[in-house]
Amino acid sequence: MSVQTEQGASAALARFAAALRFEHIPIPVLRRAEDLFLDWLASALAGKGARPVEAIDRFAQAMGPSLTHDVTFNADAEVLISRRSTSAYFAAMVNAAASHYVEQDDVHNGSVFHPATVVFPPALALAQSLGKSGKDFLLAVVVGYEVGIRVGEFLGRSHYRIFHTTGTAGTLAAAAAAGSLLGLNAEQMLHAFGSAGTQAAGLWEFLRDAADSKQLHTARAAGNGLTAAWLAKEGFTGARKILEGDQGMATGMCAISPAPQPAKLTDRLGSRWALAETSFKFHASCRHTHPAADALLRVMTTNGLHADDIAKVVCHVHKAAIDVLGPVVDPRTVHHAKFSMGTVLALVARFGFAGLTEFDQHFFDAMTTDFCRRVVMVLDEEVDTAYPVRWIGKVTVTTRDGRLLHGRVDEPKGDPGNTLSRPELEDKARRLAAFSGGASADEITRLIQLAWTLTEQKQLGRLL
Amino acid sequence: MSVQTEQGASAALARFAAALRFEHIPIPVLRRAEDLFLDWLASALAGKGARPVEAIDRFAQAMGPSLTHDVTFNADAEVLISRRSTSAYFAAMVNAAASHYVEQDDVHNGSVFHPATVVFPPALALAQSLGKSGKDFLLAVVVGYEVGIRVGEFLGRSHYRIFHTTGTAGTLAAAAAAGSLLGLNAEQMLHAFGSAGTQAAGLWEFLRDAADSKQLHTARAAGNGLTAAWLAKEGFTGARKILEGDQGMATGMCAISPAPQPAKLTDRLGSRWALAETSFKFHASCRHTHPAADALLRVMTTNGLHADDIAKVVCHVHKAAIDVLGPVVDPRTVHHAKFSMGTVLALVARFGFAGLTEFDQHFFDAMTTDFCRRVVMVLDEEVDTAYPVRWIGKVTVTTRDGRLLHGRVDEPKGDPGNTLSRPELEDKARRLAAFSGGASADEITRLIQLAWTLTEQKQLGRLL
Repeated sequence: MSVQTEQGASAALARFAAALRFEHIPIPVLRRAEDLFLDWLASALAGKGARPVEAIDRFAQAMGPSLTHDVTFNADAEVLISRRSTSAYFAAMVNAAASHYVEQDDVHNGSVFHPATVVFPPALALAQSLGKSGKDFLLAVVVGYEVGIRVGEFLGRSHYRIFHTTGTAGTLAAAAAAGSLLGLNAEQMLHAFGSAGTQAAGLWEFLRDAADSKQLHTARAAGNGLTAAWLAKEGFTGARKILEGDQGMATGMCAISPAPQPAKLTDRLGSRWALAETSFKFHASCRHTHPAADALLRVMTTNGLHADDIAKVVCHVHKAAIDVLGPVVDPRTVHHAKFSMGTVLALVARFGFAGLTEFDQHFFDAMTTDFCRRVVMVLDEEVDTAYPVRWIGKVTVTTRDGRLLHGRVDEPKGDPGNTLSRPELEDKARRLAAFSGGASADEITRLIQLAWTLTEQKQLGRLL
Repeated sequence: MSVQTEQGASAALARFAAALRFEHIPIPVLRRAEDLFLDWLASALAGKGARPVEAIDRFAQAMGPSLTHDVTFNADAEVLISRRSTSAYFAAMVNAAASHYVEQDDVHNGSVFHPATVVFPPALALAQSLGKSGKDFLLAVVVGYEVGIRVGEFLGRSHYRIFHTTGTAGTLAAAAAAGSLLGLNAEQMLHAFGSAGTQAAGLWEFLRDAADSKQLHTARAAGNGLTAAWLAKEGFTGARKILEGDQGMATGMCAISPAPQPAKLTDRLGSRWALAETSFKFHASCRHTHPAADALLRVMTTNGLHADDIAKVVCHVHKAAIDVLGPVVDPRTVHHAKFSMGTVLALVARFGFAGLTEFDQHFFDAMTTDFCRRVVMVLDEEVDTAYPVRWIGKVTVTTRDGRLLHGRVDEPKGDPGNTLSRPELEDKARRLAAFSGGASADEITRLIQLAWTLTEQKQLGRLL
């Protein structure tokens, strides 16, 4: 038996996370990490003014240190939406809450996990607070993605049925990214994983009530992961098999079959780059709506249909789409509407795109709610079997003149095989930055420049 | 169907928590709350100098506001071990970590939950920071106990098999106590519960490695519960059925039968006072060791035995004792030894009492480790059936001269029917305060006075 097997999969993953160096990362992976940075930054700026995000920022103001009062100490990281300085812990929390609000942040299909919103906030906050370089920052980001995605894949579908994987796996991802910047060795990294996993939380129950928990989950994952790494640096120990142990995350939080497989934690470490498998969101809604949305668009384009021509849309979906979107009936807020398959398809049918502005101005008008009632979801065996590795979109459209039309996409817009180009990403970033005045046109231009020159930055200072 | 049933058990519990007033609490319950306060305070002081606790305090210093730097703002609550001032959030975190270290804090049998360590820290921190009275503080404490214990009972044994209930139910308990001091109405209290439950975490996996997670669990429960209540006051919403919902805590975190029963959440609210059912710890070890320890003491006293007379001790225990203590073989730290049945029985056999000093000086000497090897645990049907409502102690002792002796206690020392008197509590508090110099003799005398006169305090200021 190899040492790796003896020590367990968590230990092997920690060794990889601690040992990875910037030079090991292939250039295309670095370029993709820069893409993801810009995309995340814009999502964070677009969270400005959102009620739940501002509440978390007020908590950070009430409980954390503040530059105004505390010039030289503990306030060295940047809150993007308010441009305040505070400690790395609170900056990570607020930026994580902000970047998960408008539902435009990235997603990794196989793990059903949103890495950016939990990896970039602790990485940026610690890089700023420790005076690290752009290369250090990118390395930490890659470490966070590689760890978090594998943890999400390991926890799998039975976990995701009840738990918001971005909150749970996200805590490990944040710990790994923070641990990289703190220079943790393999042993310390394993302790950081243990402390992260034992803090991991986030239940889907909030979705039924359109409650504000989603941003709390990312805020906590970012902050708790950072805490775990920081404590490990101080000698604080954690469980050595927090993921695969008899009283660990998989046993406690994936009780329904199929049972998790520890080999997923160490899948091709150092040769497979999970970061590059991440999808960008094109529509501003829950990713589970995108395959059907793109399939509907294809039917409409191919057949020259308008929204009014459509009598009914049957979406043939995977089980998780029904679990997450099913409880959302009669959405009354923009945020809830982003989890309504009917609303998303209505906006797509009417405007060809379900972006922030489309949601903001049209999520509840008569034409949308009327179309919404024409949409149903049914479980589809082919789609469900392919999921989560592939997110196939299949719809059957009945037209008002009685035709039955089928639409299908195998890779929704934004998936790795159908990704967004840098001009498309820049365009999306400008839209997100402008959406609630998070940054001016000049500022977002400078941030785009920064993203494309990250490897040249000797020290990451304030972004705004 | 009544409104209460329609809205669910979480809602009914939240209404109770929001509506309870000081005048409703029976006098004996108030007196017991004062007892628990002194007992908690002494446990917190005894955590001074403990490595994991000090690490969490350094984290709070690095990430939180500090009186030195920030005189007038955000630093109005007291960290007992360092006597620093910081924000209520960080004070609650550090005091919660400190008070769960020496394993002398209280326990509620039926819920297998340690209420004091997660209820008092947020209550004290917010009472100090909001300038509340002793009566407000005691009300919040009672609310926290009543909610947390019922949540622990609801989650039950299948939850406790994997999860540290004090971390999970503790987050709800902390939210309830904090919510009381913040004056949350029933609706806000329900949102606080939702936000608390979706942050609730804590896995037993760390115990296998004698890792430091136990104090992290209580620190997070206290801090996260306080956060949930604070956010609810700001309008932040949470799931309305976080406990009993289809994607709530019970479904996600108690997958093994028996299934949780929502009626336990509302068991005799306002007439049954769960706080008064709480046990004080007499020995400084995991509560699961106490019934056997007391049964062994009884055999030894009755038969005039010394430690050397004993060839073998068979402890007839409940299943949870095996789950929690079973993984602890060959303990190498004082803290780990507190979860070793063998070590505890060795100290009890040698000194008649397993206190902090006995552990500190003798947990690993030859006589202890030798006795340790003579102790085994076996599952006992009667004990397991009675658990967790009753913690029966049963041992079979084989003497070196070949006698087979049976010992039994039905209520271990410290249980409600065999509780500690105020002089005994004062004595324990003095020992804990002196253990690592947490407070001087004069100071602990003043704190004892404060505990017995809490209802007269117009405003809770600094304790030290």
